[in-house]
Amino acid sequence: MKIDVITLFPDFFTSPLASGLLGKALEKNIATVNLVNPRDFTLDKHHRVDDEPYGGGVGMLLKPEPIFAAVASLSCLPKREIILLTPQGSPLNQTILQDLATNYQQLVLICGHYEGVDERIRYLADREISLGDFVLTCGEIPALALMNGVIRLLPGTVGKVESLKAESFEDGLLDYPQYTRPPIFQEWEVPEILRSGNHQKIEEWRRCEQIKRTQQRRPDLWEKWLNSQQKSD
Amino acid sequence: MKIDVITLFPDFFTSPLASGLLGKALEKNIATVNLVNPRDFTLDKHHRVDDEPYGGGVGMLLKPEPIFAAVASLSCLPKREIILLTPQGSPLNQTILQDLATNYQQLVLICGHYEGVDERIRYLADREISLGDFVLTCGEIPALALMNGVIRLLPGTVGKVESLKAESFEDGLLDYPQYTRPPIFQEWEVPEILRSGNHQKIEEWRRCEQIKRTQQRRPDLWEKWLNSQQKSD
Repeated sequence: MKIDVITLFPDFFTSPLASGLLGKALEKNIATVNLVNPRDFTLDKHHRVDDEPYGGGVGMLLKPEPIFAAVASLSCLPKREIILLTPQGSPLNQTILQDLATNYQQLVLICGHYEGVDERIRYLADREISLGDFVLTCGEIPALALMNGVIRLLPGTVGKVESLKAESFEDGLLDYPQYTRPPIFQEWEVPEILRSGNHQKIEEWRRCEQIKRTQQRRPDLWEKWLNSQQKSD
Repeated sequence: MKIDVITLFPDFFTSPLASGLLGKALEKNIATVNLVNPRDFTLDKHHRVDDEPYGGGVGMLLKPEPIFAAVASLSCLPKREIILLTPQGSPLNQTILQDLATNYQQLVLICGHYEGVDERIRYLADREISLGDFVLTCGEIPALALMNGVIRLLPGTVGKVESLKAESFEDGLLDYPQYTRPPIFQEWEVPEILRSGNHQKIEEWRRCEQIKRTQQRRPDLWEKWLNSQQKSD
């Protein structure tokens, strides 16, 4: 997987891309990340990347030319998707991450900034993705989240395929409670059933806890899960 | 605002905390970020922070003791909130960010990792927050997003208070299309109304575009917005 990131702050990515599982995946060449600064594609002597909004309003907007030029400079693999990170996009979810990890060889991530981007930058993008219903100062964090979530799904990043499956959202329900040593910590004990060695009972308990937790914490997800079960029946 | 981050990967944060508006806000002491590694609070010679799950399963879980010890080591301001970043938490939104920025002096962010955390770590937290319905390799990215979104709302981070208000989600609708120079780029022209100088007409056009865009892209948000309007009538 080749990932190009169009960003005014390439330095932002230095330590996150060198850290943890993501850092190891990049070291192993499971994916490559190429940081491109649109400022390098400006033609005026001040290297302006932003300008005032037409019609008034505070804050600055990213200009279209440097972004178009930056994207035009990229080499292009057959299955490429250009993604604009913006609060106006589709909220990111596990299905989108699966699709991107499975069906594309190259992702181009355009990080928005300042008060927003010129509307015409949207015409460059195959799709727009939002990290969620909140506002951040920049598109670098959403780009990092998307990258991490996609690279995590590529073969070789996470040790065992099973450990990809057991987690929240992979099957549409929240995860079950998990415990490790010590068996008693402060006043809290690990549930006896988990120490019983009875694997069938443990599986049942876990499924039951997943359902309870999803119902309590995320009635919206529970509703979705029920609908998906009815459809597959 | 004092922000303590309990993280196994303090190095992850080096460049993001030095970059862009967030970097400037920290330089200006609008907020301080204190990185605490639970590994420094282990008592065994191998400095183990994770262990196998009871009941079987792949992957490792964060042990409770080092996290409890790390949190216990922190100085404590009167209005403090301990937050566990986990996919099982409440999905982050602008209302949560507003609440955290307005009502607290200290945030303690616990980053999960590996396959998850021992259930008892949840008992430490005043609340659990999820970045969204997707899985990442670590809690550092959600912690960074939360920090960025909160610090952005603190007085002094963003130049003008007005520029906080005009953006997506602050009033429950998506943002309107914005344009900057050049007036014609490739085949796309800036809408004439934005160049008319008629501020009332521009306001009307923008509101109308906000509504259209929210209806088309996010019927769920539109529904919510309608309900909130009826209540405030």
